[in-house]
Amino acid sequence: MSEAPALAVSTVIFTLRPDSTGCMKLALALVKRIRKPFQGQWALPGGPLGVNEDLSDAASRNLFETTGLQPRYLEQLYAFGSLDRSPGSNIKDRVVSIVYWALVGSDEAAEAIESENVSWFWADELDKLAFDHNLIVDYALWRLRNKLEYSRLAHGFLGERFTLAQLREVYEAVLGRELDPGNFRRMVEANGAVVATGERLEGTRHRPPQLYRYDSSIDLTDQGPLRNSTNKQEKKK
Amino acid sequence: MSEAPALAVSTVIFTLRPDSTGCMKLALALVKRIRKPFQGQWALPGGPLGVNEDLSDAASRNLFETTGLQPRYLEQLYAFGSLDRSPGSNIKDRVVSIVYWALVGSDEAAEAIESENVSWFWADELDKLAFDHNLIVDYALWRLRNKLEYSRLAHGFLGERFTLAQLREVYEAVLGRELDPGNFRRMVEANGAVVATGERLEGTRHRPPQLYRYDSSIDLTDQGPLRNSTNKQEKKK
Repeated sequence: MSEAPALAVSTVIFTLRPDSTGCMKLALALVKRIRKPFQGQWALPGGPLGVNEDLSDAASRNLFETTGLQPRYLEQLYAFGSLDRSPGSNIKDRVVSIVYWALVGSDEAAEAIESENVSWFWADELDKLAFDHNLIVDYALWRLRNKLEYSRLAHGFLGERFTLAQLREVYEAVLGRELDPGNFRRMVEANGAVVATGERLEGTRHRPPQLYRYDSSIDLTDQGPLRNSTNKQEKKK
Repeated sequence: MSEAPALAVSTVIFTLRPDSTGCMKLALALVKRIRKPFQGQWALPGGPLGVNEDLSDAASRNLFETTGLQPRYLEQLYAFGSLDRSPGSNIKDRVVSIVYWALVGSDEAAEAIESENVSWFWADELDKLAFDHNLIVDYALWRLRNKLEYSRLAHGFLGERFTLAQLREVYEAVLGRELDPGNFRRMVEANGAVVATGERLEGTRHRPPQLYRYDSSIDLTDQGPLRNSTNKQEKKK
């Protein structure tokens, strides 16, 4: 058998979690490496692709083994294969990683597995990760922020129904900046992807806010002809 | 050594070529398979990734070995790894393909290598290709058509300087439909990515058309933080 780079699948798992003040922030799941190279450093969850396993199934398995959760949204990000991904390692141990990124609902993430070796980190406060994983996270963040603008991606963080304030909170957490509520409402209304359900949030308030939902006839963009074959997780819902 | 899927790199190579009436049309380079599976069928050029080879270098090598040319533009498209990519083959022979797409200038493509086993095909008139390569081509076409709208991608098919008619010809070939010259000129002027050089096409005409160039300060989009590390071919120019 000739020498060839090994193949792995890794997954960037995003969710929203409240910080100490209750403000929602973008977080991602990392695992501590228990083997060389980069032993003791944090890394994206991943591992070898099974010979009988589809790429997206391997990414879902990463996610499940790491957090005990199913993805609300899953998409292939990029294949990373630079020769210098693991400085100091033998070229014979070279690994090419096909990376997926996933969204997990903030309600579910609150109940995700955490341990000494699995933890959530704020996406904008990461230290040096193993391998080229900082570069991978940067690219995943860039893709997430770009797609949020023109798709119903925020749905991955929310339930089926949500208030405009909850939707704005998702945008603010992902984009990392505050948005003017009036402008946000006008943007959402002009966009047309979100429709009022006619219901209102249950609670004790005098005038509870309206509940909205995404218009399911509007597709997620950028899936092209692959949509049916690669977005199984999303379709199962 | 445990069983694991093999890794290959393939490349969709696009160019523009004149049809029998002289009209420019979008074409891609295919190679005839000389081995099973799919022996005798046409397929995208590709092969195993060298252990010392970057992914994009392998894609450039595919392109060079197939056509004798260098890419004007090269970008990773997607990693294809479905279990049913090669029906009838043993799962032990499973291959995951990381696919790139490339643009080759129409002037250069006219001098590209052609042989019994390497040929150009019209992108919109393909028969059944080997493996899942029709799906891959469909996705590459979708990506190309999407990117053309908002980037200086047409540059990959043109020289440094071009007339608006030449630029429109690229758009028409890629999008597969005629565009109104007046509307096209207004779209280009409003977009701002193309600037007049002040020069005119040399020739014998009474009023030769103006030459334009892309504003190089405007980046190709959708490269994200990977731009510097993955777009070497483009940067070398």
